[in-house]
Amino acid sequence: MFQFNIFRKQSRGLAPGSRIFVGDQKMDVPRTTVMDFNPEDIQEKEIVDVAGLGEYKTTNNFTWINVDGVHDPILIEKIGNVFDIDSLVQEDIMNTTHRPKMEEHEDYLFIVMPMVWMDEKTRKENSEQLSLIIGQNYLISFQEKTGDFFEPLRERIRKRKGSRVRTLGIDYLAYAIMDIVIDNYLHLIDLLGDQIEDLEDDVLDDVDNEIISKINGFKRDINYLRKRVRPVREFIILLSKSESDLLSHTTIPFMKDLHDHIQNAYENVETYREMLTDYLTLYHTGASTKLNDILRILTIFSAIFIPLTFIAGVYGTNFQYFPELQLRYAYPIFWAVLIMVTIGMFIFFKRKKWL
Amino acid sequence: MFQFNIFRKQSRGLAPGSRIFVGDQKMDVPRTTVMDFNPEDIQEKEIVDVAGLGEYKTTNNFTWINVDGVHDPILIEKIGNVFDIDSLVQEDIMNTTHRPKMEEHEDYLFIVMPMVWMDEKTRKENSEQLSLIIGQNYLISFQEKTGDFFEPLRERIRKRKGSRVRTLGIDYLAYAIMDIVIDNYLHLIDLLGDQIEDLEDDVLDDVDNEIISKINGFKRDINYLRKRVRPVREFIILLSKSESDLLSHTTIPFMKDLHDHIQNAYENVETYREMLTDYLTLYHTGASTKLNDILRILTIFSAIFIPLTFIAGVYGTNFQYFPELQLRYAYPIFWAVLIMVTIGMFIFFKRKKWL
Amino acid sequence: MFQFNIFRKQSRGLAPGSRIFVGDQKMDVPRTTVMDFNPEDIQEKEIVDVAGLGEYKTTNNFTWINVDGVHDPILIEKIGNVFDIDSLVQEDIMNTTHRPKMEEHEDYLFIVMPMVWMDEKTRKENSEQLSLIIGQNYLISFQEKTGDFFEPLRERIRKRKGSRVRTLGIDYLAYAIMDIVIDNYLHLIDLLGDQIEDLEDDVLDDVDNEIISKINGFKRDINYLRKRVRPVREFIILLSKSESDLLSHTTIPFMKDLHDHIQNAYENVETYREMLTDYLTLYHTGASTKLNDILRILTIFSAIFIPLTFIAGVYGTNFQYFPELQLRYAYPIFWAVLIMVTIGMFIFFKRKKWL
Amino acid sequence: MFQFNIFRKQSRGLAPGSRIFVGDQKMDVPRTTVMDFNPEDIQEKEIVDVAGLGEYKTTNNFTWINVDGVHDPILIEKIGNVFDIDSLVQEDIMNTTHRPKMEEHEDYLFIVMPMVWMDEKTRKENSEQLSLIIGQNYLISFQEKTGDFFEPLRERIRKRKGSRVRTLGIDYLAYAIMDIVIDNYLHLIDLLGDQIEDLEDDVLDDVDNEIISKINGFKRDINYLRKRVRPVREFIILLSKSESDLLSHTTIPFMKDLHDHIQNAYENVETYREMLTDYLTLYHTGASTKLNDILRILTIFSAIFIPLTFIAGVYGTNFQYFPELQLRYAYPIFWAVLIMVTIGMFIFFKRKKWL
Amino acid sequence: MFQFNIFRKQSRGLAPGSRIFVGDQKMDVPRTTVMDFNPEDIQEKEIVDVAGLGEYKTTNNFTWINVDGVHDPILIEKIGNVFDIDSLVQEDIMNTTHRPKMEEHEDYLFIVMPMVWMDEKTRKENSEQLSLIIGQNYLISFQEKTGDFFEPLRERIRKRKGSRVRTLGIDYLAYAIMDIVIDNYLHLIDLLGDQIEDLEDDVLDDVDNEIISKINGFKRDINYLRKRVRPVREFIILLSKSESDLLSHTTIPFMKDLHDHIQNAYENVETYREMLTDYLTLYHTGASTKLNDILRILTIFSAIFIPLTFIAGVYGTNFQYFPELQLRYAYPIFWAVLIMVTIGMFIFFKRKKWL
Repeated sequence: MFQFNIFRKQSRGLAPGSRIFVGDQKMDVPRTTVMDFNPEDIQEKEIVDVAGLGEYKTTNNFTWINVDGVHDPILIEKIGNVFDIDSLVQEDIMNTTHRPKMEEHEDYLFIVMPMVWMDEKTRKENSEQLSLIIGQNYLISFQEKTGDFFEPLRERIRKRKGSRVRTLGIDYLAYAIMDIVIDNYLHLIDLLGDQIEDLEDDVLDDVDNEIISKINGFKRDINYLRKRVRPVREFIILLSKSESDLLSHTTIPFMKDLHDHIQNAYENVETYREMLTDYLTLYHTGASTKLNDILRILTIFSAIFIPLTFIAGVYGTNFQYFPELQLRYAYPIFWAVLIMVTIGMFIFFKRKKWL
Repeated sequence: MFQFNIFRKQSRGLAPGSRIFVGDQKMDVPRTTVMDFNPEDIQEKEIVDVAGLGEYKTTNNFTWINVDGVHDPILIEKIGNVFDIDSLVQEDIMNTTHRPKMEEHEDYLFIVMPMVWMDEKTRKENSEQLSLIIGQNYLISFQEKTGDFFEPLRERIRKRKGSRVRTLGIDYLAYAIMDIVIDNYLHLIDLLGDQIEDLEDDVLDDVDNEIISKINGFKRDINYLRKRVRPVREFIILLSKSESDLLSHTTIPFMKDLHDHIQNAYENVETYREMLTDYLTLYHTGASTKLNDILRILTIFSAIFIPLTFIAGVYGTNFQYFPELQLRYAYPIFWAVLIMVTIGMFIFFKRKKWL
Repeated sequence: MFQFNIFRKQSRGLAPGSRIFVGDQKMDVPRTTVMDFNPEDIQEKEIVDVAGLGEYKTTNNFTWINVDGVHDPILIEKIGNVFDIDSLVQEDIMNTTHRPKMEEHEDYLFIVMPMVWMDEKTRKENSEQLSLIIGQNYLISFQEKTGDFFEPLRERIRKRKGSRVRTLGIDYLAYAIMDIVIDNYLHLIDLLGDQIEDLEDDVLDDVDNEIISKINGFKRDINYLRKRVRPVREFIILLSKSESDLLSHTTIPFMKDLHDHIQNAYENVETYREMLTDYLTLYHTGASTKLNDILRILTIFSAIFIPLTFIAGVYGTNFQYFPELQLRYAYPIFWAVLIMVTIGMFIFFKRKKWL
Repeated sequence: MFQFNIFRKQSRGLAPGSRIFVGDQKMDVPRTTVMDFNPEDIQEKEIVDVAGLGEYKTTNNFTWINVDGVHDPILIEKIGNVFDIDSLVQEDIMNTTHRPKMEEHEDYLFIVMPMVWMDEKTRKENSEQLSLIIGQNYLISFQEKTGDFFEPLRERIRKRKGSRVRTLGIDYLAYAIMDIVIDNYLHLIDLLGDQIEDLEDDVLDDVDNEIISKINGFKRDINYLRKRVRPVREFIILLSKSESDLLSHTTIPFMKDLHDHIQNAYENVETYREMLTDYLTLYHTGASTKLNDILRILTIFSAIFIPLTFIAGVYGTNFQYFPELQLRYAYPIFWAVLIMVTIGMFIFFKRKKWL
Repeated sequence: MFQFNIFRKQSRGLAPGSRIFVGDQKMDVPRTTVMDFNPEDIQEKEIVDVAGLGEYKTTNNFTWINVDGVHDPILIEKIGNVFDIDSLVQEDIMNTTHRPKMEEHEDYLFIVMPMVWMDEKTRKENSEQLSLIIGQNYLISFQEKTGDFFEPLRERIRKRKGSRVRTLGIDYLAYAIMDIVIDNYLHLIDLLGDQIEDLEDDVLDDVDNEIISKINGFKRDINYLRKRVRPVREFIILLSKSESDLLSHTTIPFMKDLHDHIQNAYENVETYREMLTDYLTLYHTGASTKLNDILRILTIFSAIFIPLTFIAGVYGTNFQYFPELQLRYAYPIFWAVLIMVTIGMFIFFKRKKWL
């Protein structure tokens, strides 16, 4: 079970379009790296003055600019100016509490989507906002923190000349990045799902609050993921049907493939949600069965011994004129009565199928 | 938990289109103020005779007319005549029980939406109806009471020459106003949400009616907000797709931004709604678990002591011929039997996993 | 709580289009009145021979023909012949069990909608079917019984020369009639709603069947209203978008206004429906809380006194060789044990937070 | 409550389009009758060799061919050849487990719908598949068994020259047949509904499994009807909007009328479904109320008498040194204590509002 | 109840489009067979070198190529090269965890759908992925394992010259294959359904966890099937409306027939799902009824005997001054009191209708 921070609070009362960082934490210094490649060559460097990025706009190469850290409004504005990015988009990049979405602008597509993953060491979950600006021959990715899941992709770009990502260009690169993000969703859902499936056996066995807390915890996690996955699915559908000039004919099938993946993720989330609801019903029904069991036993014990105790009580009274007490065989007869009452009770409960 | 007045009763049997104030309270005297500005200049004054407002229709300036108090039919009619406002619209302005909506008229857009907020002092919630008439170069806002949340916006208009609101005109002004209103929704939802999230720990702990009343109270509040937010979302979607001449090309992205906000508000409302439903299920399940717990203990006590009491009762009888009583070791044997019965019971319940 | 007659049985096996009265009761003699007016003049009379109605078809005046009583097939047929009304429509007028609907015919609109109201004297609910034939310059209304809610409307027509209803014509008249009918829905929903809201406090307090019966009764009423209001809403939406020649440009905004009202009615019905469902959940949860309460007390009493009784029982046995009984301080020690057991129990239940 | 045969098993592994009877029973010999009429004349005969049916294709008369029994593939194939009926349609006619549907073919419409009714004698329900081939001047109806509900319709055709069915032709005839079928749905729903409504009073009164079985039985019946009525509604909507040449302008209003009826049937089914769900909730709530009642009484009895019994037990011990027992007024004081404890308990339960 | 492997885990972090087998098991050597036929002739052989398949592309015959085993990327790539199959499609063929889908490519349709069936011997369920490439004059089917349900279809191709499948070509062949797959769905649903229907009687009888586990097991199976059937239904709808050149006019009615079948399968799945939900409700209600029954008996026993025991206890006390004990008829009076109390209790419970 994870501890997602479900609702980050919104900034309020700010002038719209103001570039203000809204999020949990800040890195010290944002870091900008550039990967400039064509099918033949590749160049990587770290950029200090983002004003110099302008040169990449005019080349024929494909350029992937990655920015780690989105809390510095001056940096974002500078990059925004170089690439003519709308100020509302700039604001959205800095506001890391945004709902996933895609916007088609004239010169670029703007995509906001969360990355979610499990920290290998702490076994805790993390999430981070990824913003993509997809231009004609450049792609800018903004991440909240250093470190990402795109290193294998970078390796592929570095090592394999003439590979798809080197030849097909920016829209394929965007696809490859989103594919990794969505694969991470699927992986996280699988991890959660394994734990949820393991829970099943416990549900009918125990009647305690712990299992309920667990189910509820998973429900929250699943709802958290669902809230993320649903809007991503929405814009991926749009993307796979988009007629934007920025998406070439060759990339559309890949976008459809992406659609298959996110659809799969969404349906798994829904399946686990239903499973958890079924667990609650199961738990409830199991508790009700156990309740019947408990009370059946209580009733059987009470119904058998309470009459017997009463009879014993009668012969424990101290009446002076108490004819039975003097009888020679009173005591054996007394026991005979007790046993007959007990047998009668057994027959009664047997008939009721309680025994 | 708030005490919204969920259903204000409707007026009935009136001739349609009659200008009659339908609402809770009246101010003494409505107050009309004008803010007339262009990128360079700005002028503010309070208007006594609304007939004089006609001059603002023909200027090139942007004019924001704000009316506090909507209970004076004559005033509304006068303003209506000056700006050619339909009599049905006039009626809608005065009827403060209206469902949020937008209407596109030939010369203006008409918007009705509620403002909801928490009173800083009393910590109680308030709501008030805001009506907007959005014309070519003028905007008229009608509020029920004096005092609003637009003061920071007015400050921005006053102080910042060349700021967006000064240059982009009336449609941007309308956006800025609605943005503030929707930010207030988000804020109120956040406040409610914090309280709802805090409730969670109590839900499984206590089994009493108080927690149920609380959950129910929150449910009402959330339903109240949902009833307000949903129709607002509906017309904001329309607005962001509108092809009205009154909305310039530059403002459309801002309307889309508004759409993002209200969508966010709506989804948070839905999430809290589901959370409350989950709480009820949790509570119910917790109560059922506790019931099992209680009855397990009752059954264990009863099942152990009732037979023992019976045995003691047997040896408390006063039969004259009672062989066991005379035996030398009857009493220790009696105890041995009691202990054996008890141990048997323990084993029985241990096997049933009740202990 | 009302006693609506939810399902009136359908006629069956009749040749389609046959004019047969299907309904609960018959008036003795149907009554036909005519109100013929233009902005200047007005004339009212009661008609005996409906064949004479033909004259109103050709005048330039607006004519409102009202028929009280729809059980006379000959009358309906005669009127039908005069105004060229389709025989299927005639059948629909006589069949008072119809689902609300609107049909656009070539020369007229045909509307069927129920009127529902509360009898001021008996405080019981009534419903009656209203059929409207809306022609170019005439409107025919068919009602089941004498007496309606349109008297104030007639007064307005009579007294106010140049009023909207006198000048705007038949489609406005139709609007005014439907407005009154829908206002009555809203009023009835308000009445029901008040009672439903008052119920809330009782729900958590009492655990008896009476409150359940009440909730169920209200649910029926609300479902009854919903079944009526929903199809009315459907055709009012159509009406407000209709391009029929029979609706003039001026009347369309009024139809939209009507749409607002019926939408409001529908949403209130839905809100009360959800409220009643919440009540049932509340009741259930309250009952479950009380059950826990009851059983906690039972268990505490039993768990404390059953062991004590057992101990007392042991010392009530009549064993001859019973060493403790002879001890000097046996009785005080006996009491000390009892008190210690009791204290132990208290601590046990205190730890379980049952006390 | 009825015993519908809910799922008839499908044939499997057959070559598609193979004409194989799939159904419950076979008649011995199928029977084919022809009714050939125009506004003036009418002719009826039973056909032995279906090859002779070809003559009816070319006449100007309207021809209604009725086939009782669909288990003879040779017959169906012969008829199919005469009227150029697709082999898939022929297969569908023989497979009586089909989902209701309509298909528009070039020369004819093909309709499959179930007839459901209650046997007047056995008070049991029956269902039978009706297939209609609606051509330009002929209509072929296929039924599983001899005997149907169309006799009154045949009488109307026979007796009334110039009646609608004689003049309006084949599409009106199809309407009239479907009208009878749907009227039977409504009738059956009414019958079921009456029984369901009668059930209400029992629901809160009794807590036994019998009422649950009844509710469940009705639920099955209602679901069965719903599964039939929903697809019929679907194709009737299509039919009322169809632009097929086979439906004349004059018949369209009748199809709309049909739509009203089936809509009504569908809504009644839905209403009864909801009613049954409400019953289950009611039952559950009633059971829970009774449970509280039972346990309140148990707790009151136990809580009052268990302490009393304990006190009596104390004074029943046989301690030798037992000071109270020797006191003169010990016994009356003992009673006083008992009475005080009882009164204390009464006050306790009174405060808890259990008494 | 079956043990489907509900979620096979996805591969992750692979370069998209990489041909990697994702599935549970591998066969040793894939096997490729070819069936080449026209209305007159037929030829069958097993292929070793798939490169030779190229010849079938240019003939006028219809060619059905079947590949058993999809774990060999080289084989798949070779076939892919011969028939110009997109590399993403190749990947999809090897990934046997795919959601059912259809893709229209330029030269072929690509269909992925699961086959599900019950193993006749082990009575366990199996599932396997079937991929179809439907070209102009060839069809390639990929299956995970050797052995399928298409043998009767092959027999029909072999034996019946001029039969539909021999004359109508590839699209009809595709239909025939899918028809068999969907018939298997229906068969499996029928098998499950029979078991589910048989469960009904047990639901109300027993209150134990076993029945709950059973219901839950069936629910999983049904959900598993639903997850498969729903997307198949989706693409079959698309197929029956497709305007692809690869589907001839003659085959469209067969696709519509397929639509009927899968619709039927889907509705049966939904019906069984609802039935299982109803079972849970029934079980719950039955358990609640039994609980009431149990507690009624407990309460009756306790309420009758506890007061009696108390009275006996009183007369068992050893007070020295105890007037009643000395009375001559004390004991008979004592019994009279006991009997009267018992009768009183009986009357009390009779009035409450508990007896």
